[in-house]
Amino acid sequence: MSRISVRNWISSIADRGRELLDLPLSTPQDSYRPLANLCRDLVSQKGEARGTALAREVVRMWENLPATDHLKFFEMMQNDFSAKRDAVIKAADAYKADPTEANLAVLTLASEPARQELLRRINMAPGGTRAIVDMREALIDLLKTNRHLEPLNADMQHLLMSWFNRGFLELRHIDWDTSAAILEKLIRYEAVHEIKGWDDLRRRLAQDRKCFAFFHPAIPDDPLIFVEVALVHGLADSVQALLEPEIDIEAKTRANTAIFYSISNCQEGLKGISFGNFLIKQVVEELKREFPQLTVFATLSPIPGFMGWLRTRQKSKADDADQAAIVLDTMSNDDWINDPERTEALKRPAMQLCARYLSQGQRGKSPLDPTARFHLGNGARLERLNWLGDISTKGLRQSGGIMVNYAYRLDEIERNHEALVNDGKIAASRSVLQLAGN
Amino acid sequence: MSRISVRNWISSIADRGRELLDLPLSTPQDSYRPLANLCRDLVSQKGEARGTALAREVVRMWENLPATDHLKFFEMMQNDFSAKRDAVIKAADAYKADPTEANLAVLTLASEPARQELLRRINMAPGGTRAIVDMREALIDLLKTNRHLEPLNADMQHLLMSWFNRGFLELRHIDWDTSAAILEKLIRYEAVHEIKGWDDLRRRLAQDRKCFAFFHPAIPDDPLIFVEVALVHGLADSVQALLEPEIDIEAKTRANTAIFYSISNCQEGLKGISFGNFLIKQVVEELKREFPQLTVFATLSPIPGFMGWLRTRQKSKADDADQAAIVLDTMSNDDWINDPERTEALKRPAMQLCARYLSQGQRGKSPLDPTARFHLGNGARLERLNWLGDISTKGLRQSGGIMVNYAYRLDEIERNHEALVNDGKIAASRSVLQLAGN
Amino acid sequence: MSRISVRNWISSIADRGRELLDLPLSTPQDSYRPLANLCRDLVSQKGEARGTALAREVVRMWENLPATDHLKFFEMMQNDFSAKRDAVIKAADAYKADPTEANLAVLTLASEPARQELLRRINMAPGGTRAIVDMREALIDLLKTNRHLEPLNADMQHLLMSWFNRGFLELRHIDWDTSAAILEKLIRYEAVHEIKGWDDLRRRLAQDRKCFAFFHPAIPDDPLIFVEVALVHGLADSVQALLEPEIDIEAKTRANTAIFYSISNCQEGLKGISFGNFLIKQVVEELKREFPQLTVFATLSPIPGFMGWLRTRQKSKADDADQAAIVLDTMSNDDWINDPERTEALKRPAMQLCARYLSQGQRGKSPLDPTARFHLGNGARLERLNWLGDISTKGLRQSGGIMVNYAYRLDEIERNHEALVNDGKIAASRSVLQLAGN
Amino acid sequence: MSRISVRNWISSIADRGRELLDLPLSTPQDSYRPLANLCRDLVSQKGEARGTALAREVVRMWENLPATDHLKFFEMMQNDFSAKRDAVIKAADAYKADPTEANLAVLTLASEPARQELLRRINMAPGGTRAIVDMREALIDLLKTNRHLEPLNADMQHLLMSWFNRGFLELRHIDWDTSAAILEKLIRYEAVHEIKGWDDLRRRLAQDRKCFAFFHPAIPDDPLIFVEVALVHGLADSVQALLEPEIDIEAKTRANTAIFYSISNCQEGLKGISFGNFLIKQVVEELKREFPQLTVFATLSPIPGFMGWLRTRQKSKADDADQAAIVLDTMSNDDWINDPERTEALKRPAMQLCARYLSQGQRGKSPLDPTARFHLGNGARLERLNWLGDISTKGLRQSGGIMVNYAYRLDEIERNHEALVNDGKIAASRSVLQLAGN
Repeated sequence: MSRISVRNWISSIADRGRELLDLPLSTPQDSYRPLANLCRDLVSQKGEARGTALAREVVRMWENLPATDHLKFFEMMQNDFSAKRDAVIKAADAYKADPTEANLAVLTLASEPARQELLRRINMAPGGTRAIVDMREALIDLLKTNRHLEPLNADMQHLLMSWFNRGFLELRHIDWDTSAAILEKLIRYEAVHEIKGWDDLRRRLAQDRKCFAFFHPAIPDDPLIFVEVALVHGLADSVQALLEPEIDIEAKTRANTAIFYSISNCQEGLKGISFGNFLIKQVVEELKREFPQLTVFATLSPIPGFMGWLRTRQKSKADDADQAAIVLDTMSNDDWINDPERTEALKRPAMQLCARYLSQGQRGKSPLDPTARFHLGNGARLERLNWLGDISTKGLRQSGGIMVNYAYRLDEIERNHEALVNDGKIAASRSVLQLAGN
Repeated sequence: MSRISVRNWISSIADRGRELLDLPLSTPQDSYRPLANLCRDLVSQKGEARGTALAREVVRMWENLPATDHLKFFEMMQNDFSAKRDAVIKAADAYKADPTEANLAVLTLASEPARQELLRRINMAPGGTRAIVDMREALIDLLKTNRHLEPLNADMQHLLMSWFNRGFLELRHIDWDTSAAILEKLIRYEAVHEIKGWDDLRRRLAQDRKCFAFFHPAIPDDPLIFVEVALVHGLADSVQALLEPEIDIEAKTRANTAIFYSISNCQEGLKGISFGNFLIKQVVEELKREFPQLTVFATLSPIPGFMGWLRTRQKSKADDADQAAIVLDTMSNDDWINDPERTEALKRPAMQLCARYLSQGQRGKSPLDPTARFHLGNGARLERLNWLGDISTKGLRQSGGIMVNYAYRLDEIERNHEALVNDGKIAASRSVLQLAGN
Repeated sequence: MSRISVRNWISSIADRGRELLDLPLSTPQDSYRPLANLCRDLVSQKGEARGTALAREVVRMWENLPATDHLKFFEMMQNDFSAKRDAVIKAADAYKADPTEANLAVLTLASEPARQELLRRINMAPGGTRAIVDMREALIDLLKTNRHLEPLNADMQHLLMSWFNRGFLELRHIDWDTSAAILEKLIRYEAVHEIKGWDDLRRRLAQDRKCFAFFHPAIPDDPLIFVEVALVHGLADSVQALLEPEIDIEAKTRANTAIFYSISNCQEGLKGISFGNFLIKQVVEELKREFPQLTVFATLSPIPGFMGWLRTRQKSKADDADQAAIVLDTMSNDDWINDPERTEALKRPAMQLCARYLSQGQRGKSPLDPTARFHLGNGARLERLNWLGDISTKGLRQSGGIMVNYAYRLDEIERNHEALVNDGKIAASRSVLQLAGN
Repeated sequence: MSRISVRNWISSIADRGRELLDLPLSTPQDSYRPLANLCRDLVSQKGEARGTALAREVVRMWENLPATDHLKFFEMMQNDFSAKRDAVIKAADAYKADPTEANLAVLTLASEPARQELLRRINMAPGGTRAIVDMREALIDLLKTNRHLEPLNADMQHLLMSWFNRGFLELRHIDWDTSAAILEKLIRYEAVHEIKGWDDLRRRLAQDRKCFAFFHPAIPDDPLIFVEVALVHGLADSVQALLEPEIDIEAKTRANTAIFYSISNCQEGLKGISFGNFLIKQVVEELKREFPQLTVFATLSPIPGFMGWLRTRQKSKADDADQAAIVLDTMSNDDWINDPERTEALKRPAMQLCARYLSQGQRGKSPLDPTARFHLGNGARLERLNWLGDISTKGLRQSGGIMVNYAYRLDEIERNHEALVNDGKIAASRSVLQLAGN
């Protein structure tokens, strides 16, 4: 046996750490005691001896735990697997007295709650990562009415963020040769423009479309996020056109523009861990390599906060409060979309208000609109507004029928991002700025 | 765009965290400034905007950093990427005043040094994980004379332990169909019984042998640890016999015993992160599935600390100090192995002392011999001592020519482990105990 | 350059053969001349020099050839790429005079039509095998009204039979992890019990079902034949029950019987090349390995010729002609299936006639019913008849609502096959024989 | 059961054919009778019923057949599995009387010896293709002294040529990530410039080298042919330089020339089935795609027949007979290579003779030199002669130390090939022609 690790400064710290992990004193009176006991075994010496067997058992019991016991289980995790208060305070005092890196190391270790080690050990089981993502999904659901569980949520998010590091993710091209088991999940997860069955999916994987997804090696058959791309000629202005069944069989040679028309996160349990930024940028690079003739990479996005903002705007003291009121009034019935006259009359005032909302609507430095916040935060710029770009009921009610293109130019991304974060400056094309009346 | 994460308690903590990460004030006067600057950019907003591009550049510069600059680089990582002292103290005071889980969460976050986030971001690059493992290898080397870098080492080990969690590892069967690129690494990494070129390797992958290794998905072409197994009939008593060229072509049907005769860690940079325990247990399960007729799973191991212990023993007040002195004296020249008379005369006293060393030699509860510490700590038991089990020069000088079998019985592992850890009780067969004279 | 083949007896024969291939004299007046010319180039020296380029062009032009030109194309292949008459006659005379193996070899070579070499060269192109299978599908369609093309068909079948040799086929397990591109083809090719979309398919791939297919390496994404299997407890008696949506999630442990309820050939162009025999036997072996508890392997098959035979029977002089007439009359309206009284009254006479049809109906030694001919020819035996086993319209009109189980017992297969082929003896269970009144 | 093939014209022919296959009458008195009997069973009805089981047994028995019984086995295959003489003569007479395609089809079928069907059925077994290739290797070895087995050889070659059709081959890139099992075979099969162990092999797979091989899906772990390529700057003139250990790490960007310096057939049993032509052309295409900057594709080849030709030349009446005599005399001792004076004096006359040998030495239209015959026959042209291009002992004794570059230009290949085949015109560069004195 070679290279057995010798006792050193590290492991002595680790030993001290292990003491801190030692078991909590609380005596739970709960009915889910077997799972709680298993968790205790798992972070104890038994966990070291029996390797993954205990972790496997925890996963199995979690999977069979009734949803009604979830709350108690999470409270147990949070309360019974905390840090050792005395050790934390002692380490904190030492650091306060002498803020060396060595003292910081002791404090860092002491203040890490035992539940982090518990989660790391659960993760040893086959299917452990999947189970932890599922746990967090259940926890997020409970959080709405149980804010006291935020610390547990913070620990889970911290670990998942580390484990789902970009460096561990695998980008895969999704097409009709992908397994039905994965394709079926795309149908289920699509959150922007519903996939209406296998025929619709097949159309979205035809030769004038592309689809990419991130996967994690520990959850190999379930995507984390995916993006759907249309290869078109010229900036797309209507999502209904993109979803039509005709396939452009010459797209691969003719297309000069890649439109990211849908991007969906798949795992509720990974909320707060952002993949979209990485995905879009890597897909831009992939597409550039495969289709050198592509020159424009842009989204075709909804403006989900626009109609809500209009309602606030009409009650405000802004100069265009009346304009907002008129637009809202005309749009109050979805019928307007079928009346060419009303549609034409609405175009100018609605587009102008929307351009203002997107290019000026900010809370602090951050854009008001959630989709804008995402893409502008990634370094994209507001490129063009498209009147009647989405005439679905959802499109009318949220976005006033308007869609927006955010353009990704790799050489501008950093500059745009920094201007927004440092100065609150939103990158926008001349045409959008003119429309907004600047 | 769907499911944009909304501001909540978590992200507000995360924001506070991000402030804490904000850049250090120190002004380094070092020559490796470009890499230091890149690291700063990477944990700043630039790092968020430019995705993996910055991380890739850090990896590239690290790979080209002269070894003479490693020390300065690591000192920079440790000193410039610490925690924010004031924030730590404030959070510690709050926790002291009111030790709630919420206050603990703030402290946990505040006391995490910024270098952890730096490492996580380096890990985003292609090859980032490999680079961090290499960094740690260089750091461990420097640590011997630079103990002040232990805190940085602790942070690296903490992250690597989380990333190289058992749940993320992949067990692979290694055979002659494995790529030359990987096989070549086995030759290089074998640390117990040197592989003497491709012919020797090929013999170790023949039909009466098995080889298994753990891999991590982010380092897919480089094993973390591997174990070599011989399928034999009856407990093997000599490693030279196992290394001989004759292949037992009927082993797959005849063998009743699997001998783990060599296990080697491959990555110096993962020191202190234990894989051997998991590997052995999973390989036992794999072999049981493939060869149901196997009934015994045991190692054939050296006793690397035996001769050293003898030298201590002869100077001690122990009853067998004289016996130790005689054995040592006779073995002082390697020639004894060629003299049947001396060999025969040595057998009884040497074996007895060795049985005592292994079954009683403990510091606290922990076995003295490092290999014993590993296997007994895993829950194996001392099964049998083999006189002249290893007559290589190394075998004579470290182990007095003796080898030991540690037996793994899945149903005893936990009991053995707990008896050792709780009571310092070493599991041993009746024959070993008798030999030791108990 | 090593091992250049030297001129020898073989190659001198080959040279003589090449002369025979030399170009035909006919002067076609057809409009598809470019493709004909390409074919000539391909079997000439140009074909040797330009390797696969010419073959690729032939494939491309074939794919674009209008269906209206298929007949002319095939006539050209048959007439312009025959053997050299004089050379054949000369070789035949030599063999007649002196029937040595050497003279036979010359004759074998001389009498091989040049179209075989043409087809072998077309096969060099990427997609060549696919193209030849498609050609034969088109040819088979034309054959109905153009029997004079049989010689070309015979050559194609001869080559395809050699290329689709069992040794080159790959058995694959089909499940929900299979690509959508392949699964979609199962939906299209299922010829026995229509697959009604993706949900139905998914049910047929659930954990109590199995599906296996043969593939050829040159057509890797298109199955040649596939079989659907239900894992059940006891011999299945109704196909409607098998197609129901409820999944038996414990089938893998509980099932003792594998029912082959559907087997479909996929490639019209491979007509006359039998895969079913091999497929069923290999699947029996695969299932036995995976589920050792399975003891019965049987089909649940239609009796497609039964109702037709009844119509012949009623007009015959057989003792049961009247019985047949009554059954036919009662079944003349599909409504009988909804009338318990009529259904009950029909059962005995219909089942008896059916048992006679299956166990005695033969033309020469060969069973009359095509499905019986296939399974009994493979060595299966008639196991059981199932009243109301298929109450679909098709089932009523072809099989009188009856289904039959053919049982495959590996140790009986050869005996059953030989008894049928040599003595015309049909293997049947005692119960079927009793029902038939023997 | 669907699409059961119905009796038609084809199958009636097939039935007639099957009769012809019926068993031979000869009664062998040989000791290998069990294998002969199995072969008989295999082509009989038993072969149809028991599927691959019988074929598997034939393969197993062949593998265990002592080499001393090979001759008898092959004689049995040739004599006992011929065609039916009467049926052949009857079919030949019918064709003679009325040479229709239908009559030809009957004759084609009748004159096919039963051993072809036997071989096709052996091929159904797992490992069947491998076994047949091995059989042919053994047969070729025996042929030297047993020319009467040529008809069997012709049948084997005919079938193997059809099965190893270019369309079924898979081109694979071989590098250090390839399995050791395959790499080891390259070491064994290299026939031009011996690979001296794993280090030498590794150098030949470094980043300035490429290696490609053809594989057949039924023999997936054993190459059929492979070619080694050096990526260099300018036409290589010495093979010793190419085999040196220094690696040009910038080759991938700097190289403008691909030198095919070694091409080896791997399977003796596939002798006479040419892969080299296809391999070189496809590798040219692969390299062009990966390295667009490559402009020259050429071999660096020995001239294996040169020294032999010189010996003939000196005895001839040719004008340069004396020149040949002098060159031969000077080269009679390998020492000349170490004497700069002799080396310099030899250069001009030896190179001139060699240029004549290569550009004019023909038997009929075919080049005399076997390597020239291969490359010029493929459409390459004689590009340049290299004095002292191969100073190994083998190089001196066969090629007088000279090597030649044959250049492959895709747009000239067909023209060069046709000029050679039709007019016996060898394509050569101006410099070679000038050297030859034309």
